[in-house]
Amino acid sequence: MSSPEAGRLYEKLKKEAEASGYILNPDKDLVTDLMEGLVTNKQRYGYLSCPCRLADGIREKDLDLICPCDYRDADLDEYGACYCALYVSEEVAAGKRELTQVPERRNAESSKTAKTNDQETTRLTGHGIPVWRCRVCGYLCARPEPPLKCPICKADKDRFERF
Amino acid sequence: MSSPEAGRLYEKLKKEAEASGYILNPDKDLVTDLMEGLVTNKQRYGYLSCPCRLADGIREKDLDLICPCDYRDADLDEYGACYCALYVSEEVAAGKRELTQVPERRNAESSKTAKTNDQETTRLTGHGIPVWRCRVCGYLCARPEPPLKCPICKADKDRFERF
Amino acid sequence: MSSPEAGRLYEKLKKEAEASGYILNPDKDLVTDLMEGLVTNKQRYGYLSCPCRLADGIREKDLDLICPCDYRDADLDEYGACYCALYVSEEVAAGKRELTQVPERRNAESSKTAKTNDQETTRLTGHGIPVWRCRVCGYLCARPEPPLKCPICKADKDRFERF
Repeated sequence: MSSPEAGRLYEKLKKEAEASGYILNPDKDLVTDLMEGLVTNKQRYGYLSCPCRLADGIREKDLDLICPCDYRDADLDEYGACYCALYVSEEVAAGKRELTQVPERRNAESSKTAKTNDQETTRLTGHGIPVWRCRVCGYLCARPEPPLKCPICKADKDRFERF
Repeated sequence: MSSPEAGRLYEKLKKEAEASGYILNPDKDLVTDLMEGLVTNKQRYGYLSCPCRLADGIREKDLDLICPCDYRDADLDEYGACYCALYVSEEVAAGKRELTQVPERRNAESSKTAKTNDQETTRLTGHGIPVWRCRVCGYLCARPEPPLKCPICKADKDRFERF
Repeated sequence: MSSPEAGRLYEKLKKEAEASGYILNPDKDLVTDLMEGLVTNKQRYGYLSCPCRLADGIREKDLDLICPCDYRDADLDEYGACYCALYVSEEVAAGKRELTQVPERRNAESSKTAKTNDQETTRLTGHGIPVWRCRVCGYLCARPEPPLKCPICKADKDRFERF
């Protein structure tokens, strides 16, 4: 049984996910637990820190862990789910791919993400990331891989090209 | 009378279109036929191949024909409708512009679109396409012409500038 | 009491705002007046010219004043509200920040915005504006400041980096 706050958060995240081509895990019990965790973190820290990770409590240090976290899309791409399995790929949602434990991506990238305010680092990070173009609508984004769905026209990943 | 699958697909496409500033043809009979065609193609090929064109049956070869096709936006821009007339411009939807037969754009561009996986070609294609910026919200996209509506803030085409 | 046209416009703008991470002023009376003004301007000029400013009546000259105006996002960023206070920031909507009179930004920028069709100027304008990248989803936009919310994944402003 979920609190009213958790229920409202779920409705909000679901609507936002659908609008942008993302999918919440159809496992209602799991998602309810995650919503309660997010609501607790919001009350505790003032922001929706990831319910599956230990927050520092200082927004600047937790920026990459605020849901949706900086690692969601890379994890969706590689494992079909984010670290919490709150967001899943179409294949996982349809039961065509099994959920596996998603390893923590943060450590591998921590030296980079810890320096958000370091202009020098940010610029280098930015420049190293490829830009992708949706061949259908022209949407541009800068990510290691194209998104699973174009957030604008919902075209699949294989309809993106390097730009 | 439409099948439940066609009805669900219609609701999904309509919602997605509205969210991104696109418009489905208000002619319900035509659209119902197109939905049935899309559902049939999905069952036959595994993807929503254009109901008005002959598919090859191999996803890689039909990529540009998956609905919305790679030619939709250029056709909307020039003719006020896509090849199937599933998507129409605001003027056509409001009856201020008449629907005309939309010529097949694919042949003219086929040499380009056939080589999606050829890095060299893709890069050239990308670079030859202008980037447009919405003066209202800063949205960036790469297309021959700006979109009829900004998918983010719904500003009209004439509020975009070359970037 | 509002006209049916104003009511429909309100529903449309509210839905579009939510989908893109913008917020309409919760003050229903104020917003109703603004909707009536917009509907009047639409009938008078053929486009949704800002209800709080004097329009010229020629679309090309009023382009920057069509709602949402070219100044909305900069004003939201600096004052927590657009010139009309139709759009407000999350803090203003939640009553955590007070509404203040928003000074007219148009005059300061008029020499620039008046020349929309001047290719030379447009290109310079474009190049002077920084590109921002959402660290969560890779969304790219070109604006003086990042948006308050990523229109794609709803991440907050501080999760954008210069690109």
